[in-house]
Amino acid sequence: MADIVLALDLTDVKKAVKIAEEVSEYVSAIKVNYPLVLSAGVDIIGKLSEIKPVIADFKIADIPYTSSLIAEIAFKNGAKAVIVHGFAGKETVQVVLDVAKKFNGEVYVVTELTSSTEFFKDVSNKIARMAKELGCHGIIAPGNRADRVKELRKIVGRLKILCPGIGVQGGDAKAVVEAGADAIIVGRSIYNAENPKKVAEELSKLV
Amino acid sequence: MADIVLALDLTDVKKAVKIAEEVSEYVSAIKVNYPLVLSAGVDIIGKLSEIKPVIADFKIADIPYTSSLIAEIAFKNGAKAVIVHGFAGKETVQVVLDVAKKFNGEVYVVTELTSSTEFFKDVSNKIARMAKELGCHGIIAPGNRADRVKELRKIVGRLKILCPGIGVQGGDAKAVVEAGADAIIVGRSIYNAENPKKVAEELSKLV
Repeated sequence: MADIVLALDLTDVKKAVKIAEEVSEYVSAIKVNYPLVLSAGVDIIGKLSEIKPVIADFKIADIPYTSSLIAEIAFKNGAKAVIVHGFAGKETVQVVLDVAKKFNGEVYVVTELTSSTEFFKDVSNKIARMAKELGCHGIIAPGNRADRVKELRKIVGRLKILCPGIGVQGGDAKAVVEAGADAIIVGRSIYNAENPKKVAEELSKLV
Repeated sequence: MADIVLALDLTDVKKAVKIAEEVSEYVSAIKVNYPLVLSAGVDIIGKLSEIKPVIADFKIADIPYTSSLIAEIAFKNGAKAVIVHGFAGKETVQVVLDVAKKFNGEVYVVTELTSSTEFFKDVSNKIARMAKELGCHGIIAPGNRADRVKELRKIVGRLKILCPGIGVQGGDAKAVVEAGADAIIVGRSIYNAENPKKVAEELSKLV
């Protein structure tokens, strides 16, 4: 049994809240990204966290000083977790983790993007190892490359693995869960569906 | 002669606008990052662009779909340029460039962070080459490593090189300009100074 994380990559605030409410019984968390937060204002995090825990997918990838400010804003506004790019280096991941601890929050580290392996391929496993060593809560692994999820599972042990890239980006939910994912992150397949609730329900049965 | 870009890494909106106005005659552009934009709302980009052209330092590092939405929000709100992480891959940089073209905007590509070389060292030069090949407007190079700026200058030819990391992070303005930077990006040294205008003026004479 794996969880479903709803990726609300929308800019229409009303639609975003409506979808979140509709599918809430089938998802364990809501992932928000900059398009929604910039359109709606950062308060949207608090609003959505009344429905489900919110993961602020800010893909933090800045110097430690700026990264800590970004993480602080996410947690202060009610996020339960933030996502940071491992690529930014251990200094950045560490400060984000320090901020998270103050808020009892969680940190997930991107090991590689679903859209590109070009600059990740030689460092993705190292990033996963770093995430484990620093005591992060989990990693983001590519849901459209089940073989990579399997490999990353071996590296991170019991850390949580969250996989985007399911559906529109080609990832197969079942294959990814079998490869070791704890949660699949699904956006467009749900929120662009004619019946989002039905799609979420079916997915929940599948994984 | 090099330019000075003011990095407004503040969360206090009033202070941010005040500093921008105070030093405007000495800077060529204002760089805003998420801490300010999330605190102030995305309208701050338009407000500041009445003072000077705004570079949205969103360090975009997402899949192409999400990255294009982020870039669109930046340009729609009045940004003249956006900053994208090269390590996100050419697919991401390309869509950001496509969005920029629609708005007559510019795209700057981070080749490596000032705070970490760990995962950048083997790809930074490749990222710079990619930025040039895709037709980006410039790169972000580490102002605290003048030797790297010199090396990156050889790769990118006449592309603009913007260098953060001056001052608090240890970079020497003069050395970096001699190494080939077109602009130094300065934040804390200016906005945390007792007299920001005086610091900006002195820096402008130096570079």
